[in-house]
Amino acid sequence: MTTTDTLARTLARALPPIAYAGNPLDRADAVRTDPVRLAAVQAAPDAQLLVLDGLAPEFGADGGLTWAPLQSAPDGADLVFLGLDEAGRGCFAAAAPGLGGSTAPAAPNLRALLDAMPARDLAIYGGARSLVDWHARHRFCARCGHATQATKGGWQRSCTNADCGADHFPRVDPVTIMLVEHDGCLLLGRQPRFPAGRYSALAGFVEPGETVEEAVAREVLEEAGVRVRDVRYVASQPWPYPSSLMIACHAVADDPTITIDQNELEDARWFTREEVSAALEGRADAPFGAPTHTAVARHLLEWWMAHRG
Amino acid sequence: MTTTDTLARTLARALPPIAYAGNPLDRADAVRTDPVRLAAVQAAPDAQLLVLDGLAPEFGADGGLTWAPLQSAPDGADLVFLGLDEAGRGCFAAAAPGLGGSTAPAAPNLRALLDAMPARDLAIYGGARSLVDWHARHRFCARCGHATQATKGGWQRSCTNADCGADHFPRVDPVTIMLVEHDGCLLLGRQPRFPAGRYSALAGFVEPGETVEEAVAREVLEEAGVRVRDVRYVASQPWPYPSSLMIACHAVADDPTITIDQNELEDARWFTREEVSAALEGRADAPFGAPTHTAVARHLLEWWMAHRG
Ligand SMILES: [Zn+2]
Ligand SMILES: [Zn+2]
Repeated sequence: MTTTDTLARTLARALPPIAYAGNPLDRADAVRTDPVRLAAVQAAPDAQLLVLDGLAPEFGADGGLTWAPLQSAPDGADLVFLGLDEAGRGCFAAAAPGLGGSTAPAAPNLRALLDAMPARDLAIYGGARSLVDWHARHRFCARCGHATQATKGGWQRSCTNADCGADHFPRVDPVTIMLVEHDGCLLLGRQPRFPAGRYSALAGFVEPGETVEEAVAREVLEEAGVRVRDVRYVASQPWPYPSSLMIACHAVADDPTITIDQNELEDARWFTREEVSAALEGRADAPFGAPTHTAVARHLLEWWMAHRG
Repeated sequence: MTTTDTLARTLARALPPIAYAGNPLDRADAVRTDPVRLAAVQAAPDAQLLVLDGLAPEFGADGGLTWAPLQSAPDGADLVFLGLDEAGRGCFAAAAPGLGGSTAPAAPNLRALLDAMPARDLAIYGGARSLVDWHARHRFCARCGHATQATKGGWQRSCTNADCGADHFPRVDPVTIMLVEHDGCLLLGRQPRFPAGRYSALAGFVEPGETVEEAVAREVLEEAGVRVRDVRYVASQPWPYPSSLMIACHAVADDPTITIDQNELEDARWFTREEVSAALEGRADAPFGAPTHTAVARHLLEWWMAHRG
């Protein structure tokens, strides 16, 4: 294949933007950390509240988010200052006092609605959901067990026990997700909880004391018994279930022998370029179902098709 | 400059390995999650305990770590299974009941000793320190305030309140650290807590709802008032003060005008290639002091010199 062919193919397959990225709000750190400025933004008549039902958004007629006046926030709610919108209005979300939070992925019916949400709104929702959920699950101090209270516009919780005084910050959990390549084929796996027929990139949390590259190698070895080299960073994505930072990588395997960890995976296989292409195109004869377009795993597969053309 | 020149220069400047990476222990996830196997490893007469004084290591004659029989662990300590060494021995660390934990960087005298520690031992220490520190600061459930107990070989803490039952996992906080380039110069900054003369790469935590690339752009804009494009991943490093994942990047600025956030930085400047080179070589006429060799910021600077030769 000539360079021109490759270029043409790459351009024809322009990568879609990464879902949950591209939040248009100005996080305005200088407002968060200045109680006087924050109070002014909060008291302004145009301050807006993201309407949530628990952790789920209330969908508007266009499938996007719904906003209400900030005054409609529930009594005693922890407010999170999401940032300033294009018109300079303060945008907030509220963690209601009774909210329990969740570590589970979004329910399938909610996922379908979110998958169709306008990109701008989905990015705002993702960040807001992670923060609200974090407040709901961190009302107490992990250091001393006393109650905590929201501070710095909801970007911190501070212990109310004067003998402790610990500050706690929202979690972001880095997760590696990787395409492993051998002889032009990709290693994809199936977790028991996946929809029927779905295969996706292997993934796992980065642990204390390891690099991204070491985490990729460990996860692939643990889950599929495959050793990799030449780990390469491709892209990243915030994933709000509950608060992951997906770090998407590519790696190379020399030995394709697979040994599955049955606790993690139901199956893992090597798929050819033609099979991956059929899955991404959603063809009836595809040997597996590709991840949905909001998953960074799909972005990785599209990237691989574009760059290995 | 010819390609051959560039290659020669790159080879002459082979990058040093990343400090705190390269932990030689097998994390043995299958042992952690199997109480029977874990108990056998723990009961074996050759099981080893990393000797710590609080969070600091006890330095051996070679400047490395010191190990003792696991039986010497303090009563009531939370044990962390670090993994299996090359001889198949279980390696553990202990969070003593009274240990308070720390979110502060290591003290300067400790840092100097750690900077001289053999790479293998430094990597083991970093991971162990993050875990032990996490146990010391997470003895209570953030969800309900009740006591938690160490589970899964110290890689989890579980709430003892039957009505809650939340599981908690060690934190890893992703941090972006970036070289910003304009017209062949690099933007470096100085925090008030730095040693005299030291300048380093700007850095900041990744927040919920943003990509690595978005976090880089936001941090540089917040701290130095500079807009960047073309953010590129370079390397990563686990940094155990207390438990960061440093994600090292390079980005490009079109407008070099600097506006410092005085709350974050004492100064920020553009340095030429010659100035950076003088600092890395530790020359007396260098206009600034480079970060120590265990900092990923130094690795980034070495990478830049090697790749922009
Ligand atoms: Zn406390
Ligand atoms: Zn609990």
